[in-house]
Amino acid sequence: MPVAHIRSGDVLEVVTEDCFGGLVRGPADLPSRVCRMPYLNPVSGPFFVEDAEPGDTLAVHLVSVEPTRDWGVSTTFPHFGALTSTAHTATLQPALDERVWMYEVDRQARLVRFHATASDHTVDLPLEPMIGTIGVAPAGFEARSTIVPDTHGGNLDCPQMRAGTTVYLPVNLHGAMLALGDGHARQGDGEACGAGVEIATTTTLIVELIKGVNTPWPRLETDHTIMSVGAARPLEDAYRIAHHDLVGWTSHLTGLDLLDAYQLISQAGRAPVGNVCDPNYTIVAAVNKTHLPAAALPYTGVHTRLRRTATGLE
Amino acid sequence: MPVAHIRSGDVLEVVTEDCFGGLVRGPADLPSRVCRMPYLNPVSGPFFVEDAEPGDTLAVHLVSVEPTRDWGVSTTFPHFGALTSTAHTATLQPALDERVWMYEVDRQARLVRFHATASDHTVDLPLEPMIGTIGVAPAGFEARSTIVPDTHGGNLDCPQMRAGTTVYLPVNLHGAMLALGDGHARQGDGEACGAGVEIATTTTLIVELIKGVNTPWPRLETDHTIMSVGAARPLEDAYRIAHHDLVGWTSHLTGLDLLDAYQLISQAGRAPVGNVCDPNYTIVAAVNKTHLPAAALPYTGVHTRLRRTATGLE
Amino acid sequence: MPVAHIRSGDVLEVVTEDCFGGLVRGPADLPSRVCRMPYLNPVSGPFFVEDAEPGDTLAVHLVSVEPTRDWGVSTTFPHFGALTSTAHTATLQPALDERVWMYEVDRQARLVRFHATASDHTVDLPLEPMIGTIGVAPAGFEARSTIVPDTHGGNLDCPQMRAGTTVYLPVNLHGAMLALGDGHARQGDGEACGAGVEIATTTTLIVELIKGVNTPWPRLETDHTIMSVGAARPLEDAYRIAHHDLVGWTSHLTGLDLLDAYQLISQAGRAPVGNVCDPNYTIVAAVNKTHLPAAALPYTGVHTRLRRTATGLE
Amino acid sequence: MPVAHIRSGDVLEVVTEDCFGGLVRGPADLPSRVCRMPYLNPVSGPFFVEDAEPGDTLAVHLVSVEPTRDWGVSTTFPHFGALTSTAHTATLQPALDERVWMYEVDRQARLVRFHATASDHTVDLPLEPMIGTIGVAPAGFEARSTIVPDTHGGNLDCPQMRAGTTVYLPVNLHGAMLALGDGHARQGDGEACGAGVEIATTTTLIVELIKGVNTPWPRLETDHTIMSVGAARPLEDAYRIAHHDLVGWTSHLTGLDLLDAYQLISQAGRAPVGNVCDPNYTIVAAVNKTHLPAAALPYTGVHTRLRRTATGLE
Repeated sequence: MPVAHIRSGDVLEVVTEDCFGGLVRGPADLPSRVCRMPYLNPVSGPFFVEDAEPGDTLAVHLVSVEPTRDWGVSTTFPHFGALTSTAHTATLQPALDERVWMYEVDRQARLVRFHATASDHTVDLPLEPMIGTIGVAPAGFEARSTIVPDTHGGNLDCPQMRAGTTVYLPVNLHGAMLALGDGHARQGDGEACGAGVEIATTTTLIVELIKGVNTPWPRLETDHTIMSVGAARPLEDAYRIAHHDLVGWTSHLTGLDLLDAYQLISQAGRAPVGNVCDPNYTIVAAVNKTHLPAAALPYTGVHTRLRRTATGLE
Repeated sequence: MPVAHIRSGDVLEVVTEDCFGGLVRGPADLPSRVCRMPYLNPVSGPFFVEDAEPGDTLAVHLVSVEPTRDWGVSTTFPHFGALTSTAHTATLQPALDERVWMYEVDRQARLVRFHATASDHTVDLPLEPMIGTIGVAPAGFEARSTIVPDTHGGNLDCPQMRAGTTVYLPVNLHGAMLALGDGHARQGDGEACGAGVEIATTTTLIVELIKGVNTPWPRLETDHTIMSVGAARPLEDAYRIAHHDLVGWTSHLTGLDLLDAYQLISQAGRAPVGNVCDPNYTIVAAVNKTHLPAAALPYTGVHTRLRRTATGLE
Repeated sequence: MPVAHIRSGDVLEVVTEDCFGGLVRGPADLPSRVCRMPYLNPVSGPFFVEDAEPGDTLAVHLVSVEPTRDWGVSTTFPHFGALTSTAHTATLQPALDERVWMYEVDRQARLVRFHATASDHTVDLPLEPMIGTIGVAPAGFEARSTIVPDTHGGNLDCPQMRAGTTVYLPVNLHGAMLALGDGHARQGDGEACGAGVEIATTTTLIVELIKGVNTPWPRLETDHTIMSVGAARPLEDAYRIAHHDLVGWTSHLTGLDLLDAYQLISQAGRAPVGNVCDPNYTIVAAVNKTHLPAAALPYTGVHTRLRRTATGLE
Repeated sequence: MPVAHIRSGDVLEVVTEDCFGGLVRGPADLPSRVCRMPYLNPVSGPFFVEDAEPGDTLAVHLVSVEPTRDWGVSTTFPHFGALTSTAHTATLQPALDERVWMYEVDRQARLVRFHATASDHTVDLPLEPMIGTIGVAPAGFEARSTIVPDTHGGNLDCPQMRAGTTVYLPVNLHGAMLALGDGHARQGDGEACGAGVEIATTTTLIVELIKGVNTPWPRLETDHTIMSVGAARPLEDAYRIAHHDLVGWTSHLTGLDLLDAYQLISQAGRAPVGNVCDPNYTIVAAVNKTHLPAAALPYTGVHTRLRRTATGLE
């Protein structure tokens, strides 16, 4: 059931809880003890977008993503993560220790402070808040766990999902059903241990509906970059999906022949890894707009318009 | 047979031919026509390093990597690349067209110019020369094609292999047998089409032998970063290898407990994709030195010493 | 909404339509033309099983699986199958031709007759009817397409799902919500082209509810064999899941230490491939009961009881 | 250096040592203690085949494969096997226990007896002797460890490599350089724990050189079946390679159009898993000869001739 009905152009301020529902607050709060499956990774929403119909695209511009608390948390979770066997990469080895790391989040200094658990070491890392999970209702009458990233968005866990970015999502259902959550104060590429620096956020976003334009996989746009997201296993398929989409999109925007677009992306593209722990792994294919020949405006300039609106909000 | 014997501390200026042996010089020079298999990806060397024994590590500092010509070349090659079926990801579909792209290389302006083949578009991209293939003789009495990246180095195709970087390689054989080649004027992450902007280079390097220290997988160091390279299929295994090594190395350098190092790299690490087309795919796990707590000098400061020597050469 | 409520012990005769909903009946009926996405792979059900609660296991014994018509059909479908690039293993190559193969099904002679489309060749293959899709509602409030195989069963596409087999499925939801369909007159290992010899079936089954016993992944039992099914990508993870489950199950049934069970399955186990085309690939891990030391009866002898009941039905 | 020169048509009786060089003879003989890396998996050979030139095919018919001793041995080896993390699927978990299992081999009763290590259980399994490693020198001037299966054969670990089978291997080098070893008294599909029931063998084989016929991947033939072997990671690529080759071979032998052959193999093919532990995983694609329309004799009937010769030897 939708929590609210919104219209194209609406500005939303959304409060999101962290992936543990705020229940992990200290070293003794092991997720396997304080969280009840499958109630992990809560999202805020869904928001019903008026007039959104299958075949449309939803543009969501992230105006700001800010931590609501002065702490964040990360954990190892039994048989979850990239450097452990898992329920799928199943081995006979026992799980790694479950452990909690508490981080200080300094919003003024824009830092998060790591504290080692087995020694006195601390390190300050840049605060780079992002939204881990954002998506719409899946296609084909499916309902997916918020842990899953796929064509509908979901738990993409890509650090590029930050303030200043517009994300394009396919509308699969009347009303689209937008939801988001799982903020990270920051995250390494791949989210190796299975969690970022998990935080509650206050996120401001603008939603715009693009009628009659289909988007096959989640796409991102910033002032300088266009990006396609691929979500799949094995990881090379996430790479293939993202690059296949970016090559096609580049060809469409620039008038380049498909193989010319393939060649250009092969030399100019970047491929930041999103996650290597979720049910589908994610890779982003990205290219600087200045590395494309005189390109048409993606989605007829939605991002530029939303950026302007966002600036007016400050 | 080694082409030369060198000593720890020697400075070498090496001329490397491009991956096509310089035979692809225009649109009509299809590699499948002008190159004779398996004589692709020629390397310069091997260099026999005096006193190098199994269990040692070879540090190779790249002082400079410069194009020798004012052009570079890239191609699609039948059933090779990330966005095509291949001899291993075998399908019944015909190959993509084989095509050649000629690039202008402007060493003064530090640019490479892409020309579309099916239209008039051109784009300038930054010149960022790198070495695609560098390695030593493999372990276990194997001899590997120069196309293959693995523990011994080889065709890593990682853009991080550029001027200013020190690469650490395991010595598997008396004399180590260092060789390098396959320069790229630049390359996108993953080398999607199967080739970078292929160039001949003049590469200056300093070799130093580190006795009695073993290196499990190729490692890189710059002034700001330490990196581990993983090479495997599927791509997530390259990610796992690289991060497993970086976590262990971080723990060793900083005194962090293994899970603390895992946690820190999970939040601070980056994971640039090397190639998604070679017999083994490559991913680099990287972390800024400033994101590590007071770390011991990697390999007792070899990189710093070699950088100083390199500066003296200019 | 359930189509019927059933009780533990009930015998059902279920008519299932083929995966194309019976719409592909000749060479001109290309699925992409006559079928409307996502209305593929229709299943019969769901059946609400009284008293079934999360944590229980549903045992479904297949008494008989018989073709309802004297023909079956198979197709290539654009970008679907093991020997083509797909939406996930995305390449820039065009799809293979979409083509329809009509098979004669001879129920008396127990044969299906293949007719080549581009020449006059015909071949008779054994009729070995099976159920491709059987499952319950997924866990975690998900709803999955009937194309997907996973822990809840679904589109397993394993030829072992035939008359005489009991399948054990986890109950995830009050009522379990059993459904089945997608009969095949036969299928090769892996269902390489993406389809079996697709048929409508009349399937007789007996359902028994096993209270308070959890089943992690679908399991099968025949008079001679126990089997675990793994569903995942990449294919080795399907192998790992299936074998991890079978090793644990063997240890549980026989009292063997876990590593002893691992060793025994490593020498005695078989691993038939189910599908290499669906959203998750499937592999079965199987072992002959006579290859296990004096084993306890799986699920306290449900299969034996159901077999006896089935014999009484004839 | 070749150990002997042989001629097309020669019959060889070859004694092969087990994969541990016969050094693991009891529970205390842990391979990591008694074996010295990389001296594992010794093979007998290489045999120089007169007149064998690149582009030819070597047919090797296995007349008999018999255990030379009344015992076999299997082990778990640290970070090797399908149900453990490995050097490539690298995790931070400790290795499983290293353990040795001794088997009795009863050549008269055709049984191998498993003894549990942690309890008193024993089980008798059928003796089904096979050759794990058979191959020629690789192409492209490579030298590969005997642990590796690839286009040249090598450590295929496919149970189909048994008495009565003819294997076809590509000649890559003047003299072919045939070698074999790594006998198993039996093996489960996938060799999950990383080892079969390892034995020394006396193997009788007949070699025939087929001039001017190329073989892309190892192929097998028995009286009833033709098979193609694929070796790759991830496992689906081994499946793809094997089926791609079998589809092409079927088309070539029968005159079926490529898509017709694809369809037929999709319904009639079997896909036994070889290994899921070696550097490349292996899958066999197999089809009964009677399931092919009037097929031409593979390799112009070599297998039939060699079978006849083999019968004469008894």
